Amino acid sequence: MRLRNIKGAKEIVQNSKYIVNNYKEYKGKWNKIFDNNNPIHLEIGMGKGKFILENALKNPNINYIGIEKYDSVLYKAIKKIDEVNINNLKIISCDALELMDIFNSEIDCIYLNFSDPWHKDRHSKRRLTSEVYLNIYDSIFKNNNHIILKTDNRNLFEFSIETLSMDRYIFKEVNLDLHNSNIRDIITTEYEDKFVSKGNIIYMFDAYKLK
Amino acid sequence: MRLRNIKGAKEIVQNSKYIVNNYKEYKGKWNKIFDNNNPIHLEIGMGKGKFILENALKNPNINYIGIEKYDSVLYKAIKKIDEVNINNLKIISCDALELMDIFNSEIDCIYLNFSDPWHKDRHSKRRLTSEVYLNIYDSIFKNNNHIILKTDNRNLFEFSIETLSMDRYIFKEVNLDLHNSNIRDIITTEYEDKFVSKGNIIYMFDAYKLK
Repeated sequence: MRLRNIKGAKEIVQNSKYIVNNYKEYKGKWNKIFDNNNPIHLEIGMGKGKFILENALKNPNINYIGIEKYDSVLYKAIKKIDEVNINNLKIISCDALELMDIFNSEIDCIYLNFSDPWHKDRHSKRRLTSEVYLNIYDSIFKNNNHIILKTDNRNLFEFSIETLSMDRYIFKEVNLDLHNSNIRDIITTEYEDKFVSKGNIIYMFDAYKLK
Repeated sequence: MRLRNIKGAKEIVQNSKYIVNNYKEYKGKWNKIFDNNNPIHLEIGMGKGKFILENALKNPNINYIGIEKYDSVLYKAIKKIDEVNINNLKIISCDALELMDIFNSEIDCIYLNFSDPWHKDRHSKRRLTSEVYLNIYDSIFKNNNHIILKTDNRNLFEFSIETLSMDRYIFKEVNLDLHNSNIRDIITTEYEDKFVSKGNIIYMFDAYKLK
């Protein structure tokens, strides 16, 4: 998600108690930051933070790390998250291309929520489910790879099923209209709420790859 | 597709020049029936026959075999197909469970068009993309497995992506709204035409599995 620069956003983000500024120093030892060995779930592109915050509050035995490259968006998340006190959430202001310098075989699950579809074919490598990123993810997962994706973008969803299947992922669950299904208690993103209220289809899959 | 019994349908089907009645005798030697070594494409559940007939007319260098278990439907296909003269089309009145007694490593592509979704979970094994059928298909493909599926049934499509990925198929192409895409010259089925005219979504995938 892109927004205009907001003055002072960078400073507010850097000073949050949830932000890890020296994040590359924790590669391979994020369990020490959380002071436990609970599973670590990562949201790439956490945007305004509703999804990861609600997950962290609901599941105290899972550690959550959100990354977001736009401080102008992260700033809004921080304002919301700084109001609560929880120990199982950390945030990193970085680009997903840095992930292999940040984690080493320690992530249990990746959430990709409403990622930029990069609709032009010549930009397809920038999609978070392109071969480029799938290779990066291989190095950060602890045991089996596990990716849960939601999007309202049909092309991104089609592309992602193609690229993940090519990379030997197995789809445990595919949902072609998440908000018109039997699934209850869906934790949504801000973006998702807006699109669902317009009646747009939300696509979802839950996929894994055996080590 | 199910229809009421039509009197005399069985006889009309049996007497068609396109029908192979003693079909189990050709196991492993269907190329002899066609008198060439062209690839063989199989449509399971050919219904009223529009799809397979148009394909056969358009692609004379591919041999087509259609199977259909309901003579009351096949009868309508036969009436249409008997009017043309082509050498690259054969029809079998049989159940898909018989496939492994009919073919042996000689099919290049399977089409599953608007298969019965068997919507109850307890009937999921009857779906043509269940593990039961995927195992049967393994024995009839010549080289790599290749399945092209179209359906208007969301649950069947979701289920099929799950089962095929579990069986190590790779999705070369996924299309979540075939008739609202860049694809031109789509050969449709009778059922498809009806549903497209109502504005329904048609899902499609093209998947393969390496031997």
